[in-house]
Amino acid sequence: MTSISAASLASMQTLDTLDTLDTPAALIDVSRMQHNIRRMQERMDALGVRLRPHVKTSKCMEVARAQAAAGATGVTVSTLKEAARCFDDGVTDILYAVGMVASKLPAALALRRRGCALKIVTDSVASAQAIVAFGAEYGETFDVWIEIDTDGHRSGIRPEEDALLEVARTLHEGGARLGGVMTHAGSSYEFDTPQALAAIAEQERAGCVRAAARLRDAGLPCPVVSVGSTPTALSARHLEGVTEVRAGVYVFFDLVMHNIGVCTIDELALSVLTTVIGHQTDKGWAIVDAGWMAMSRDRGTGKQRRDFGYGQVCGIDGSVMPGYVLSGANQEHGILSREGEPDRDIATRFPIGTLLRILPNHACATGAQFPEYHAVSPTGDVAVWPRLHGW
Amino acid sequence: MTSISAASLASMQTLDTLDTLDTPAALIDVSRMQHNIRRMQERMDALGVRLRPHVKTSKCMEVARAQAAAGATGVTVSTLKEAARCFDDGVTDILYAVGMVASKLPAALALRRRGCALKIVTDSVASAQAIVAFGAEYGETFDVWIEIDTDGHRSGIRPEEDALLEVARTLHEGGARLGGVMTHAGSSYEFDTPQALAAIAEQERAGCVRAAARLRDAGLPCPVVSVGSTPTALSARHLEGVTEVRAGVYVFFDLVMHNIGVCTIDELALSVLTTVIGHQTDKGWAIVDAGWMAMSRDRGTGKQRRDFGYGQVCGIDGSVMPGYVLSGANQEHGILSREGEPDRDIATRFPIGTLLRILPNHACATGAQFPEYHAVSPTGDVAVWPRLHGW
Repeated sequence: MTSISAASLASMQTLDTLDTLDTPAALIDVSRMQHNIRRMQERMDALGVRLRPHVKTSKCMEVARAQAAAGATGVTVSTLKEAARCFDDGVTDILYAVGMVASKLPAALALRRRGCALKIVTDSVASAQAIVAFGAEYGETFDVWIEIDTDGHRSGIRPEEDALLEVARTLHEGGARLGGVMTHAGSSYEFDTPQALAAIAEQERAGCVRAAARLRDAGLPCPVVSVGSTPTALSARHLEGVTEVRAGVYVFFDLVMHNIGVCTIDELALSVLTTVIGHQTDKGWAIVDAGWMAMSRDRGTGKQRRDFGYGQVCGIDGSVMPGYVLSGANQEHGILSREGEPDRDIATRFPIGTLLRILPNHACATGAQFPEYHAVSPTGDVAVWPRLHGW
Repeated sequence: MTSISAASLASMQTLDTLDTLDTPAALIDVSRMQHNIRRMQERMDALGVRLRPHVKTSKCMEVARAQAAAGATGVTVSTLKEAARCFDDGVTDILYAVGMVASKLPAALALRRRGCALKIVTDSVASAQAIVAFGAEYGETFDVWIEIDTDGHRSGIRPEEDALLEVARTLHEGGARLGGVMTHAGSSYEFDTPQALAAIAEQERAGCVRAAARLRDAGLPCPVVSVGSTPTALSARHLEGVTEVRAGVYVFFDLVMHNIGVCTIDELALSVLTTVIGHQTDKGWAIVDAGWMAMSRDRGTGKQRRDFGYGQVCGIDGSVMPGYVLSGANQEHGILSREGEPDRDIATRFPIGTLLRILPNHACATGAQFPEYHAVSPTGDVAVWPRLHGW
């Protein structure tokens, strides 16, 4: 089904098998991951835009390398630690997509001095002033993108605001390189029909393109128009005027994305391997060793059309067991039960020692609970892929 | 206000100050932590029981050493990785308080062979059989405690169940050392009046003592009677028949514990240092660099009498700013707002670059998001205290 990048293969020495792994463990189904990477890359190729994957989901170089091998251009990061790790791994085109503040400029400068083509973002005159002042002091021309707010979700300047030109002029006249505009329609997570998703994708596109047009109309440069979220990337009908798309969670997908409707459940590439450690038969509970420390506290499906509790239960082979979910979680204990009528045969269905996989609500949050992934190849070999932790 | 243990002092070299730390960072107020440690230890001393702190909250040896220095006896752990780390740090009396399964016995054996007085727990005949069979095969006498269910919250055998004696006989006659009974009334988190908390504490005590009595009446040994949770430990009127108490989160406390009513807000010893990175003035939002990756996805106060969102905002000095909370969180962005009427002066109240502390809902979950704590001494010195991650 899949071709694995040379880099991935190189690190895929057989270290273990699923039967002998310590649990809980974060498993990547490498076939599914490669399928997801190809799916998004082919779509972006067809739409005529570059893809700049967000590594905040995986925080893992083996995954980022597979994305690059499939055709991605550069990376998006959510922390300067991710930026430094990517740069150490040979990635130079890096967008740090969180608003820059003065206290983080020395770290950004250090990366640029090492040869990293780091891009930073701002959405305020105050931060723009800090960037140009620091750049002037240290003789550095920062590459700065302006963050645009296209859906009222979080940060950014609305496309029609006066502040857009103020910030742009502060940067441009202050000696920074005005690299472009970027936006993220995070509210796309709130929709679950193709029509609504296409509409929010168009809103994201049109708003960011409009912001770029305003800059250009004012005689200011705006080479890059960067948009994206996984739901909008997979729902946009066209991306006219956009030069690149950023998306993160598509690489693994998760139950939240499944509920939104942009993936099928057999595209979910991340799961948590767990062991049954006990039962409360009268309640129809099996107790497993994946609690919230393994699954994370993310209950993202709680407000969606289908609530999966802390995750969907699957067999060790990845086959979904309909109706069985992690209905509760303590730190190192998960409560596995059947939706609706309790399963009084739970102890015979899932004897102590049974290995299961749990599909998570939110891949970014669940991955963060683990120091490493166990990447399962199509032949069943398991390799350890480390991931970043902290800032 | 506080005396710091010699071990803590030794590692408290001045490395940084709050003003120069990278954000987000997990801060421990060492004075408050020492106060909390003393408070619980003195209470346990007065009640005539040993205290076996649960290191799952801090996962940090500097914290565990401070608890031991104040009089704690041994530790409770939630993973075998915590057990190994504690043993490497010189702790030998370790209770692994999650139900044992066959696949984890080799790791438990390895620890015992190294000289660790590891205790393990079970609540089923199947696991008891696995333990004695493995012990017989490797010539090891495991020290096993039986988990008792005193509140229907999670795992364990109810005090009056036949299974209690079956499991006990399986262990005792199979050659294991029957070390005692243990319970955790996790449902104590659902109460918030002194009366209800005292009642659940008494239920936890009485149920565990009853289970011990049944074992002894049947001619079986039961030297240890171990109970505990932070709310019940701080609410029990007496602990007759109990030999030790386990508790974890008291060392830091958190907003959930504050809502339960077992601590005041100025006893909260863990906070997240964050920087203001932007605003949406019309909405009364400040954007900070502590999102859910820093705070965790724990929304434990969401169902309590006071919902603090993702956390209570404090000044850099720790002073609570009433009404200001993290009302939303994306991965690396927190949304800070005032409850009720939006604060249109948010940008002047919290200019870009402002450093704040956020008190978390759940200290165990927030701590887990960080590779290390920054421990702030009474004089303002900051030391790095590493913590465990993963399994």
